[in-house]
Amino acid sequence: MIEIDDPADPRLDDFRDLSAVDRRPDRPGGRGLVIAEGVVVVERLLASPYPVRALLGVRRRVEALGDLPAPAYVTSAEVMAEVVGFHLNRGVLAAADRAPQPAAEDLARGARRLAVLEGVGDHENLGSLFRNAAALGVDGVLLGPGCSDPLYRRSVRVSMGHVLRVPFASAPDLTGSLDMLRHNGFTVAALTPRESAVGLADAGLRCRRVAVLLGSEGPGLTEEAIAAADVAVRIPMAGGVDSLNVATAAAIAFYAIA
Amino acid sequence: MIEIDDPADPRLDDFRDLSAVDRRPDRPGGRGLVIAEGVVVVERLLASPYPVRALLGVRRRVEALGDLPAPAYVTSAEVMAEVVGFHLNRGVLAAADRAPQPAAEDLARGARRLAVLEGVGDHENLGSLFRNAAALGVDGVLLGPGCSDPLYRRSVRVSMGHVLRVPFASAPDLTGSLDMLRHNGFTVAALTPRESAVGLADAGLRCRRVAVLLGSEGPGLTEEAIAAADVAVRIPMAGGVDSLNVATAAAIAFYAIA
Repeated sequence: MIEIDDPADPRLDDFRDLSAVDRRPDRPGGRGLVIAEGVVVVERLLASPYPVRALLGVRRRVEALGDLPAPAYVTSAEVMAEVVGFHLNRGVLAAADRAPQPAAEDLARGARRLAVLEGVGDHENLGSLFRNAAALGVDGVLLGPGCSDPLYRRSVRVSMGHVLRVPFASAPDLTGSLDMLRHNGFTVAALTPRESAVGLADAGLRCRRVAVLLGSEGPGLTEEAIAAADVAVRIPMAGGVDSLNVATAAAIAFYAIA
Repeated sequence: MIEIDDPADPRLDDFRDLSAVDRRPDRPGGRGLVIAEGVVVVERLLASPYPVRALLGVRRRVEALGDLPAPAYVTSAEVMAEVVGFHLNRGVLAAADRAPQPAAEDLARGARRLAVLEGVGDHENLGSLFRNAAALGVDGVLLGPGCSDPLYRRSVRVSMGHVLRVPFASAPDLTGSLDMLRHNGFTVAALTPRESAVGLADAGLRCRRVAVLLGSEGPGLTEEAIAAADVAVRIPMAGGVDSLNVATAAAIAFYAIA
């Protein structure tokens, strides 16, 4: 624990101007560090494979974390607010480097239930989806075309740190990835509100290795994605209601295949 | 349609300073008007029992709404931003008076599936919960102690206008209301993460009149509420994950009893 009083201290640079921290042209891929906010999420970061670089917090919050693998800078709430650029009521932050993600095939090999996403670009929806995946026992997430970065600061926060816990892999060739999943014994179920789809409870998905294919909230899955799945399934909806939020629909599907 | 160029025009007072519009000491109960933002939500307000007072929007958006029961003030996006106090990218607003809510007993009499809430104080969670209730065929919501106002502007928006469509009633005496529900043939199922609860799928809730009792995200239901229910049910969770967001847990429960 190192006390720091000067908000300009360069040792605090990882935490400077957090509202812009995801844009880091100086870092690999132009992507920011992994930032965890609050005791619970910082604890999930400490338990994750991401190498922690530093922590910043008020003494009480930092002390609550126990042994730490990196320097912890202790300061006042006022100095923290000045460094990060806004008032932060969680009292502790941690910054970590990114780490290599597994290949989609490696992720699939050890999994029984997966989510495969197409065009999920909203960081909050993505974070919520990871939280629901973690709660409902989904073993990993494949990120198809048009998906956002799950390690974006807002996704990490909304996920309650579960993006640091549920493994994910990139799947830029969606059709190829679905073939790979089938080859590994998965049934691919595309979730869609269309009338012709089978009711989720009637698709016989409980006893199998299942990958749930989910599209973005607005346009939903592309025709190509639905055609490449083994079965199209739907959540029975009350008349007149367009659709559920994608993370909520995902939660229902994860529950139904558990 | 009435063109207005002056942001100070008193005919626009219903829409002034929207970020504070929920606090209206001059109105009954100190509560604000019902404000709908965006074409979809305004359409739901127009179809609701709430008496529309006025609309405000850019010409293109107002024209998309068809016949209107109240004056529609047409102006520029710049004047709208000045009136409401921030930039608004939805292009149309409507303001309505509140209307009397049904009594809990009247709501229960015509319903088959209900949600009963205790301590759901977060406006966004409340809005999401109403959206999920609408999508999954829940007939009404009873608001127990500690719940927020579903007609708060942010709840209306997050619900996509479904708080204007799913009827709700106040239930300040929670135990009394649960007795009333039982008297009306409902089985009251308390949703809780506790280990001793029955798995949601194993509680035999599909063929009955069911009221799902839900608590707030942090502390959950009180002991008294759980004790007053007929059965405590839980969503099976993967190890180490504390809980789902209350609106998401509600969605899974609504799906499971549908």
